[in-house]
Amino acid sequence: MDRKVFGVDIGGTTVKMGLFTSEGELLDKWEIPTRKEDSGSHILPDIAQSIKDRMSRDGLEDKDVVGIGLSVPGPVDDKGIVHKCVNLGWGVFDIDEEMRKHVDFPVFAGNDANAAALGEVWKGGGKGCKDVVVVTLGTGVGGGIIVNGKVLSGSTGAGGEIGHIHINDNETEKCGCGNTGCLEQYASATGVVRLAKRRLAKDDTPSSLRNANISARTVFDAIKAGDKLAVEVAEQFGDILGKGLSIIADVTNPEIFVIGGGVSKAGQVVIDYIEKNYMKYVFHGSRGTKFALATLGNDAGIYGSAKLVLDGVRS
Amino acid sequence: MDRKVFGVDIGGTTVKMGLFTSEGELLDKWEIPTRKEDSGSHILPDIAQSIKDRMSRDGLEDKDVVGIGLSVPGPVDDKGIVHKCVNLGWGVFDIDEEMRKHVDFPVFAGNDANAAALGEVWKGGGKGCKDVVVVTLGTGVGGGIIVNGKVLSGSTGAGGEIGHIHINDNETEKCGCGNTGCLEQYASATGVVRLAKRRLAKDDTPSSLRNANISARTVFDAIKAGDKLAVEVAEQFGDILGKGLSIIADVTNPEIFVIGGGVSKAGQVVIDYIEKNYMKYVFHGSRGTKFALATLGNDAGIYGSAKLVLDGVRS
Repeated sequence: MDRKVFGVDIGGTTVKMGLFTSEGELLDKWEIPTRKEDSGSHILPDIAQSIKDRMSRDGLEDKDVVGIGLSVPGPVDDKGIVHKCVNLGWGVFDIDEEMRKHVDFPVFAGNDANAAALGEVWKGGGKGCKDVVVVTLGTGVGGGIIVNGKVLSGSTGAGGEIGHIHINDNETEKCGCGNTGCLEQYASATGVVRLAKRRLAKDDTPSSLRNANISARTVFDAIKAGDKLAVEVAEQFGDILGKGLSIIADVTNPEIFVIGGGVSKAGQVVIDYIEKNYMKYVFHGSRGTKFALATLGNDAGIYGSAKLVLDGVRS
Repeated sequence: MDRKVFGVDIGGTTVKMGLFTSEGELLDKWEIPTRKEDSGSHILPDIAQSIKDRMSRDGLEDKDVVGIGLSVPGPVDDKGIVHKCVNLGWGVFDIDEEMRKHVDFPVFAGNDANAAALGEVWKGGGKGCKDVVVVTLGTGVGGGIIVNGKVLSGSTGAGGEIGHIHINDNETEKCGCGNTGCLEQYASATGVVRLAKRRLAKDDTPSSLRNANISARTVFDAIKAGDKLAVEVAEQFGDILGKGLSIIADVTNPEIFVIGGGVSKAGQVVIDYIEKNYMKYVFHGSRGTKFALATLGNDAGIYGSAKLVLDGVRS
C-alpha cells in the first residue's frame, strides 16, 4: 500500500486536516473545531483522535503512515519548539514530543505562514521554484521565505514576520504588535480598508465607496470599475507593499513572490499595483523577480504540513 | 601531509591570498596586484601563477590541495556563474570552469560580502552561530546573510544586498545604484560624513567637526569626546541603521548581527547607537538578536573563501 501523510493546519477556530499520498496528492480533507479551553490542552489529543478514526475507517495501520505535519499559528523553531501561541493559549513546549504521546509515527511541526509557503512552492503558485517569498494578505500580513527549497524559520522561529517590518515613519496609530508603521497596517485586508477610510475622510471626492460597506473586496471592485478615489487607494497600497517587498528582495533575492490571502482574491490587479511600485524601489540585482498569485487558497497549510513530513523524513 | 586550502579575495586594487590548513588555521597570507586591463583577463591566470609559485616553494603537489576559494566583488550564483563585475571589467561567465583551465583542483567562488560573512561566522565575531547577518560598513554597506550555516546567495546571487534597501522616502540625492534613500547613503563611511556635513550646514551649533577634515573616524572620535552635534549625527546614523537592521531581522530572524568594515573600527559605541534604535522598531520575535563587532578585519574574505572550499567539498 502506498504510504500516507497527514497534513494538519491548526487555526484559531478550526483545525484543517488533509490525507495525502506520499507523492502529495490530496485524497481527502476535513475539519474539526479548535477547542481552546484549558490552555488549548485538548487540541493535540483531538487531532490524534481524528487521525486514528480516519485510519481505522480506511484500514490504515501505523506502518502505513509516513507521519503527521502540524502547522501552528505562532513561532516554531527548527527543533519543534513552539515559542508561545497566544491564539491557542499555548506557552513554550516541544510540540513534536507532546504529539508523540498520542501517536506512534513521526511528527513535524512548523509555523503556519511558513507551512503555507512551503505548500505553495510544492504544489501551488511557486511550483518548480527554489527561492520564493510567499506573502499572505489576510487579516494580517504573513510571510514565508523559502531558500533553496527549505523554509527559513530563523533562530527562534520568527523568520518571515514580514507583516511587522517598519515601513512608515509618519504613522500615528499603533499596530496590533505594539509598534507603529508596520507593513500590515496598510497591506492587510484591514489595512486596505483603513487606507480607504482615511482617503474618504480627507475630502469630498465622489466615490462609490462613500455609501458602501467597505471591505478589501469592495475597494478592489471599485478599482476595477475605475473609481478614481479607489485607484488612489490602490496606488498607496501598491507603493507601500511594493516598497516592503523590494526590501525583502534586496535581502533574500527570490526568484518569485507568490501573493495569497483574502486581498489577493481580487486577482491580477493586486499584482499590477504591487509590481509597478516594487520596480521603483528595488536594487537592480532583484529587478527580474517575478510575481504570481497563490493557487492553493485555504489548502496551502495542509499541503505545506504534509511537505514538512516528507522533507523531514528524507533529510 | 595535512592538506591545504587557498582562500583568495579578489579586490579592485589587490588580490589577497591566504594559505590555510583544512582546519582553518591561516598559515600565511600575501597580496598580488589586481590587473584590470584587457577586461580583467589577467586576474585569474595571475592568481593561478601565484598559487603555483607558492606550492612549488612549499613542495606542495596537486593532491595536497583541497581547493581554491575565490571571493569576487560582484554577484555570483550557486552554480559559480559571475553576473557581471564592473570593478574588474568582468561580464557574465562560469568562474569555476575558467579557473579550472589554470589549476587542477576544485574551485569554489562566491560574492565577496557573502564570503566575508562566512569567514566571520567560521572564525570571527559570529563564531558558533548558525543564523547570522554580517553587516559591512565600509565605503558602501554590504551584507552577508548566513542561514543555518550556509550563505543565502539568492536566485541570482544578489542576496544580502542590504546597502540598497530603501529606508528614506524624503531623500533627494541619488545613491550610486541610481535609486534614492538607500541605507548605504547614511550608514556607510561616506554616509556618516554626509550626515555630519548636512548637520553642520543646518545651523551654527559649535562642534569640533567644524574645522576638521571630516571622516567617519573623526565623527566617532567627536562622539566619544561628547561633542553634542556629533552625538546628534550618531543618533541619526543609529536610527536609520537600527531601522534597517530591524527590517532584516523581521525577515530572517538571525541569532546575531556582526558589524564590520571601517566604520566599526570606532568600536562598541557604533553598536550602542544601532542596538538602541533597533529595539524601537523590531518585531518582538527578534528582540533577542545579539550584536557583536567583526574580528577578522581585512582577512574575513580569505577565511570565507577557504570555508567555501571546505563546505563545497563536504556537501
